[in-house]
Amino acid sequence: MPEITFLPLEKTVSVDPGTLLSDAARSAGIPVDLPCGGKGVCGRCLARVVSGTVTSDAAAPEGFAAVCRSRVGDGPVTLKVGASHAEEDGRFSGAPEEISLEPELQFDGPPLAERVNLTVPEPKAGDGLSDLDRFSRALSAALGDMPEVPLGVLVGLPDALRETGGTVAARVYRGRGHVISVGAERKWGLAADIGTTTVAAHLVDLDTGLIAASQAAYNAQIDRGLDVISRIHYARTPERRDELKTKIVNTLNALIETMAAETGVSADDIAAVSLAGNTTMIHLLLGVQPEYIRLAPYTPAALDTPVYRAGELGLRACPYAPVRMAPAVGSYVGGDILSGLLCTRLAEPGSAPMLLIDIGTNGELVLGGEDFLLACACSAGPAFEGGGIRHGCRASRGAIERVALDGEGNVTDCSVIGNAPATGLCGSGAISLTAELFRRGLVDASGHFAPNAPLTGDREFRVSGDVTFSETDIDNLIRAKAAVFSACRTLLAMVGLDFSDLGQVYVAGGFGRYLDLEDAATIGLLPRVGSLRFLGNASLTGAYLTLMHGGARDKLAELAGRVTYIDLSTEPGYMDEYTAALFLPHTTLRM
Amino acid sequence: MPEITFLPLEKTVSVDPGTLLSDAARSAGIPVDLPCGGKGVCGRCLARVVSGTVTSDAAAPEGFAAVCRSRVGDGPVTLKVGASHAEEDGRFSGAPEEISLEPELQFDGPPLAERVNLTVPEPKAGDGLSDLDRFSRALSAALGDMPEVPLGVLVGLPDALRETGGTVAARVYRGRGHVISVGAERKWGLAADIGTTTVAAHLVDLDTGLIAASQAAYNAQIDRGLDVISRIHYARTPERRDELKTKIVNTLNALIETMAAETGVSADDIAAVSLAGNTTMIHLLLGVQPEYIRLAPYTPAALDTPVYRAGELGLRACPYAPVRMAPAVGSYVGGDILSGLLCTRLAEPGSAPMLLIDIGTNGELVLGGEDFLLACACSAGPAFEGGGIRHGCRASRGAIERVALDGEGNVTDCSVIGNAPATGLCGSGAISLTAELFRRGLVDASGHFAPNAPLTGDREFRVSGDVTFSETDIDNLIRAKAAVFSACRTLLAMVGLDFSDLGQVYVAGGFGRYLDLEDAATIGLLPRVGSLRFLGNASLTGAYLTLMHGGARDKLAELAGRVTYIDLSTEPGYMDEYTAALFLPHTTLRM
Repeated sequence: MPEITFLPLEKTVSVDPGTLLSDAARSAGIPVDLPCGGKGVCGRCLARVVSGTVTSDAAAPEGFAAVCRSRVGDGPVTLKVGASHAEEDGRFSGAPEEISLEPELQFDGPPLAERVNLTVPEPKAGDGLSDLDRFSRALSAALGDMPEVPLGVLVGLPDALRETGGTVAARVYRGRGHVISVGAERKWGLAADIGTTTVAAHLVDLDTGLIAASQAAYNAQIDRGLDVISRIHYARTPERRDELKTKIVNTLNALIETMAAETGVSADDIAAVSLAGNTTMIHLLLGVQPEYIRLAPYTPAALDTPVYRAGELGLRACPYAPVRMAPAVGSYVGGDILSGLLCTRLAEPGSAPMLLIDIGTNGELVLGGEDFLLACACSAGPAFEGGGIRHGCRASRGAIERVALDGEGNVTDCSVIGNAPATGLCGSGAISLTAELFRRGLVDASGHFAPNAPLTGDREFRVSGDVTFSETDIDNLIRAKAAVFSACRTLLAMVGLDFSDLGQVYVAGGFGRYLDLEDAATIGLLPRVGSLRFLGNASLTGAYLTLMHGGARDKLAELAGRVTYIDLSTEPGYMDEYTAALFLPHTTLRM
Repeated sequence: MPEITFLPLEKTVSVDPGTLLSDAARSAGIPVDLPCGGKGVCGRCLARVVSGTVTSDAAAPEGFAAVCRSRVGDGPVTLKVGASHAEEDGRFSGAPEEISLEPELQFDGPPLAERVNLTVPEPKAGDGLSDLDRFSRALSAALGDMPEVPLGVLVGLPDALRETGGTVAARVYRGRGHVISVGAERKWGLAADIGTTTVAAHLVDLDTGLIAASQAAYNAQIDRGLDVISRIHYARTPERRDELKTKIVNTLNALIETMAAETGVSADDIAAVSLAGNTTMIHLLLGVQPEYIRLAPYTPAALDTPVYRAGELGLRACPYAPVRMAPAVGSYVGGDILSGLLCTRLAEPGSAPMLLIDIGTNGELVLGGEDFLLACACSAGPAFEGGGIRHGCRASRGAIERVALDGEGNVTDCSVIGNAPATGLCGSGAISLTAELFRRGLVDASGHFAPNAPLTGDREFRVSGDVTFSETDIDNLIRAKAAVFSACRTLLAMVGLDFSDLGQVYVAGGFGRYLDLEDAATIGLLPRVGSLRFLGNASLTGAYLTLMHGGARDKLAELAGRVTYIDLSTEPGYMDEYTAALFLPHTTLRM
C-alpha cells in the first residue's frame, strides 16, 4: 500500500491506492479544512505535493493539489499542508469575560436546575410507603407539582435518603420537569454559545450566578465547511450527521473538561446546560437532518427544541442535567441572536427604534420598534474570521490583528496576537489594514490600489514577511461588509427608517472584541451612529441569563413569539442596497 | 496457570492459582446454581472432582466440592458438574397459552402504546412553523394534550413527514406521556411475568389483542440464589446488582428475540412493554438496591415504579417503548399477584369472600371480601419447583411430573416430560408421588415411610432408575405446602373466615399448569373447596390486560390502593397454623 507523509508534522499513513487525500489526512490525524464541503472549489485545502504524484479532478496551481479531490496512485507521496492546519491549536485564552448587558435589565426567577431542600420522613413499618412515595410527597409538597424521577435518580434514592436521615437536597428541573439529582451537591451550570466557527462557554455557580471559568474553542466542525450552507451540504448522509454531531459534542466536552480541571469542579456536578446557537448548529448538535433548512420552503425540523438531558446528547455533565436550547425564529435567525436580544432594550415597550447586529460568519440582525421586532440574516461569509483572504487566518496566535500605516504606506505598527511571527491577517487585521489603506488614499472607493500604493511585482501590498494583501482580498472584505450593511439598510427601509432614526445600535459577536469601531465605520461596515454599544458575545450572555433566571427563560419564549423573520433574499430592495454597498465606505448616493 | 476442565461439556479454562471454582466455571460459560448466594451451605453446586485437588472451606461428600467455596491449587483439575447444569436448556415449549380470566371481566380503553392517525400540514414558507410545531399541533388537537417528543423521534420527524406527505401514524404513550414513534408501523407489545424462577412472555398485536407468540425461560438470575432473599443477599454490591440486572434483561431479550424470530416481527417494532414481577424482581431489573426490602422496616425503594423507556432499561424494543411495571403493595406482595387479581372477581363489589393463591417460590395470597382486600406472602421455598429435593429438578425435559403406584408401592405409571429418560422429580411429580404414597398407606401423616413401604437399603423409595425419594424430601415438600396452607388459614382467621366460607378459590402460578388438584388436596396443599379455578399464569395474563387496556391499568392502580398488606411473620397465629400443617394432609384437629 502506498505511504503518504504529511509535512510539517511528518505523519505517515499507509493507504489503499486511489484513497482520497482528505481521507488519508483524517486517518493520519491531520485536520483539513473543507470549507466548500469537499467540492474542490474553494482552494482552502490546497497542499504542496513535495514528492510523488496524485491524480485530481479539481484545478490547482502547479505543484499543489486540492486534498479534497485528489487521490494517491501506487507510489508514495509527500504533502505539505498549510501552516494554519498544523499550527493552530484552535483554542482561545480562558480569561473570564465580563457579563455585558444593559444595567437596567434585571431578570429574576430560579436557575434551570433549582435547588429544593427536603425533609423526607424515615421509612416506617406498615405505612405502605416506598422510598419513592415518601420522597415524591415531600417534593410535591415543596413544589406544588411532581416532576418525573429518572431511573438513575431512583437507583440512588434508597441510600441517599438513609445516609442523610431524610434531610436531603434535590436539584429539580421544573416545567414539565424531572428530578436531576438527589443528595449530591450539584450546583454547577454550563452556558454556551455554539457558533459556526467558535464555541464559547461559561461554567456558572447556579446558587450565586458567579462565573467560575470561561473558555472558547473552535467548533470542531469547521473542517467540514466554514459556513452553515457548506455544513448542511456536508451533512447529507446519516454517517456524516453522526460525525458532525460527535464533533460539536466533543468540542463542548473539551470546554467542559478544561473548565472543570481549571476549577476543580467535577463535570458530573453540572446540573443544567443552557445553549444558544443558530438553527443549523442546533440541528447538527441533535443529529437532526438539516437539509430542509436550505431547501424551499426553508422549514427547520424544530425551532423551539424540547429540553433533552445531557446524557441523551452525550454531554459531559450529570446525565439528567436538562439541556435547554434557546428557541429560534427561523432557519437563519436562530436562538443565538434571540439570546443576544436579552442583553438589549430592543423589546422594551416605548423605547426608540434600536438595532442589534450580531456579526459572525452568518450575520444576524434584529430591528426593534414600538410595535415590531424584525429579524433577518445575511451571509457575510468567513472573511471577518480570516476566511476567503489569501493570507487570512483566524484570530489565534500569529494573526495580525491591527495595522497602522504612514502616508507613504509604510507599516508603522503591526500588532500580532501572542507577539509571535506574523502568519496571516485575521478579520480585524484585514479591516484595520483596509481602513488604513483607504484613509491614506492608497486604496480608492472601489477597492483598487491607487497608483502611489507601494506594491510588489504581483500588485500586492506587503504587510509583514510573507503576508501580503491583494485587491481580491479587499474585494472579499468589501463583499462581507456590504452584506451586513445592506441587510441593515434593507431592514430599516422596510419600516421607513434610516440609521439616523435609531436610538441605539448594539453590536455583538466574538468578533466584536477585536473590532475597532472607527475602522469599521471607515470601510462602511457600520455607520457612525450616535449611540453604539459593543456587547461582546451577547449570545453567550443570553445563554447565561437563561441558565440563571426563570424570568429570562420566560422573556426568551415571549421574544420568540414576537420576532418576525424577514427573508432578505425575497426583498426586492436588498440587491440594490448590496450593490450600492460594494464601495468604501459606500456609494456617494448612500452616505 | 492451572487448567480446569468441566465435564460433561469438556470446556477448559486456564485460571490463576487460588481462583474460586465458581468464577472459573463462569469464565468457561458453565452455568452454576448458587441458591444460597455462595455461602457453601445449600450443596446445590456440588461437583465431582474427577482428577486434581482443590481446597475448600465448605463441607462436601468425599470426592465432591462445593464450587462456590472451593479454589484450585497449582495443578490441573477436572470437574464433573451436575447433569442439571449441563443439560437443561432452561426453556419451555413456546405453545401460545390461552388467556384465562373470568368471562364476565372485560376491560376497555386503549393499549399502552396508542395509535394516532394524523394529518400534518405540509411545510409552508413564511408560516414560522417548524416540522415539530406542525406535528405537535396536529397531535395535541387529536389527543387534547401534548406528549413529549423524544430526541430519536425528532431526528426521524423531517423525513417521516415528507415521505408520507404528512399523513402519518404515530404511536403515543399517554398519561404524562411521550411519542414512541412516528411513521413506522410499530404495532407490537410485550407482556411479561418476571418470576423468581421463570420468566414468561407474550408478543401481542396491540391493534387486535392477538397473541402472536408466547415463550418462557428460566430467569438467568437463578444461579445467584433460588429465592428472593438469597438474591437480595447476593445483590449487596453495585457490581452484583449490575450483574443481576444484566441477567434478567438478557433473559427478557432472549424471549423477545425468540418470539420475534418465530413470527418475523422486528423487535424494534415493539412499542410498549407491560411487566409484572414481585417487588424484588422489579428492583433487580431496575438495578435498584433491594437490601431494604429484607431489613426492618422492610421499605422498598419503589412500589409504583415510574414508566421508563425500553432503551433506558436495555430491552430489545423500540427505544422509546414505555415499560410499565405493575404496582406492588409491599416488599413481599408485588405487582405479579396484583396483576393476577385482574383475572379474578375478588375485588368486585358485593361478591362473596374469595381467595387468590399464587403458588411459586414465593407464595402470595389475596383474600377479598365485601370491604377488604388482604394480601400476604409466604416463603414456600423452591420445593414446588424441584429445589430442596435430592433428586428434584425443574419442570423441563427428563422431569417426572406424575407417578401412579399400586397398593404394594410398585410404580404403575411414571410420566416424564419429553418422554426422555427420567433425571429427577419436578414439583408436580414430587406432589403426585407423595400423594400416591400417602393414599396407598406407604407414608403416614407425619411423612414417615410405613413399615410395608418397599425401600432401598438407604431407606429411600426408588421411582425410576437412579431417581429416589427420601423422608427428607417428603419433609421438605410438607414444609412448603404447610407454608402456603397455613398462610391461607391465617389470613382467613384474621377476618373470622374458614375455607368453607369462600365462594371461590383461584389458584395461579406457572406451576399450576402441572398440578393435579386431587393430589394437592391429598397432601393438604389446598383444601377440597366447592369452587376452585386454575388461572394458569395469572400474573402474565394481568400484564397482557394492562398492556392492552387503559381500563385494566386504571383498575390495577385502584387495586394497589385498596389492598392491605399483612406481614404474616408478625401474626401470632401463623406459627401455630404452620406447625399444625406439618402433617399429611393436616393435624386431625384442623381437618
